[in-house]
Amino acid sequence: MKQLKQRILAEGQNLGRGILKIDSILNHQMDPQLMLDMGEEIARRFADAGVTRIITAEVSGIGPALTAGIAMNVPVVYARKHKPITMTEPVLVDSAPSHTKGGEVLLMVSPEFLDPQDHVLLVDDFLATGKTIAALCRIVQNAGATLVGIACVVEKTFEGGRDVLASFGVPIESLAVIVSMDDGQIIFSGD
Amino acid sequence: MKQLKQRILAEGQNLGRGILKIDSILNHQMDPQLMLDMGEEIARRFADAGVTRIITAEVSGIGPALTAGIAMNVPVVYARKHKPITMTEPVLVDSAPSHTKGGEVLLMVSPEFLDPQDHVLLVDDFLATGKTIAALCRIVQNAGATLVGIACVVEKTFEGGRDVLASFGVPIESLAVIVSMDDGQIIFSGD
Repeated sequence: MKQLKQRILAEGQNLGRGILKIDSILNHQMDPQLMLDMGEEIARRFADAGVTRIITAEVSGIGPALTAGIAMNVPVVYARKHKPITMTEPVLVDSAPSHTKGGEVLLMVSPEFLDPQDHVLLVDDFLATGKTIAALCRIVQNAGATLVGIACVVEKTFEGGRDVLASFGVPIESLAVIVSMDDGQIIFSGD
Repeated sequence: MKQLKQRILAEGQNLGRGILKIDSILNHQMDPQLMLDMGEEIARRFADAGVTRIITAEVSGIGPALTAGIAMNVPVVYARKHKPITMTEPVLVDSAPSHTKGGEVLLMVSPEFLDPQDHVLLVDDFLATGKTIAALCRIVQNAGATLVGIACVVEKTFEGGRDVLASFGVPIESLAVIVSMDDGQIIFSGD
């Protein structure tokens, strides 16, 4: 997605160790028009997948998941990482290693919002190691629903997430694919 | 907002002690059309406020803040409660008592996304005690920006938040105003 790549190059910061800061458009501030365009692009790529529901994880997945939901007119569920007072048992729970803090991060979804009849598209901000997304995929499977695809805003191929997710056997689409962040650069696939 | 009140009555659960569960439309799952409609209603109510930026707090404020941002075509900043690896110093920080866990919840905003020239609309999911919103208001003031209004999806008048926020001297608009949740009921203002 050309427009996204241009914004990443213009506003993104390579903080080293593979960490990309794009707080101005995704992880702290959201540009509404870019967010709508990303949602439409995700909808276009999965137009034939029969999606009935979208799942993401709080926090930064919510924006692109919501605009994809707007474009596809399907409900959007966000997995909680901190159990809210309104989340009552039973809860589907899985975990993934925390990228930033060490330890594990829990992902919790109420089964009332994942139906066995659902065809679920997973949307998230980053595809890096793939472990958080894999945990969400397992939650979809444990609910008895059908996972039909994975859409990410930014993929960092050098962290290997695509291989981790191959076992789920669904199409994986990323709107911007970064193949290298060595030497302070941001190199996209195809550049 | 009639449509919102109807959905709250149809799908909301009064869990007692003033706790309203509306996970099917706001706090765990988002209905994209209702979310768009809420954003447009917020934009309509603050059409003359000269809004240049919207601020909210993760997690459940993000949906209505984003759709309000879409309707007004202004960027949307979400305050972080857990400092992400990409958030570098300096950071504007304030705190509020945690509604669900006791203790304090921190709210963090990078000053690069709050300009002294900004006219800021605050959007959040619930107006209850008003303490989280007050902390966000102080962050806006500490950035030197101008707070122009507060928009909430659901207000629970019996928790007194509107009085707590009166000192900020800005219009407060809520899309659904609940005046009582006694005896398992959900009573809206004007009903």
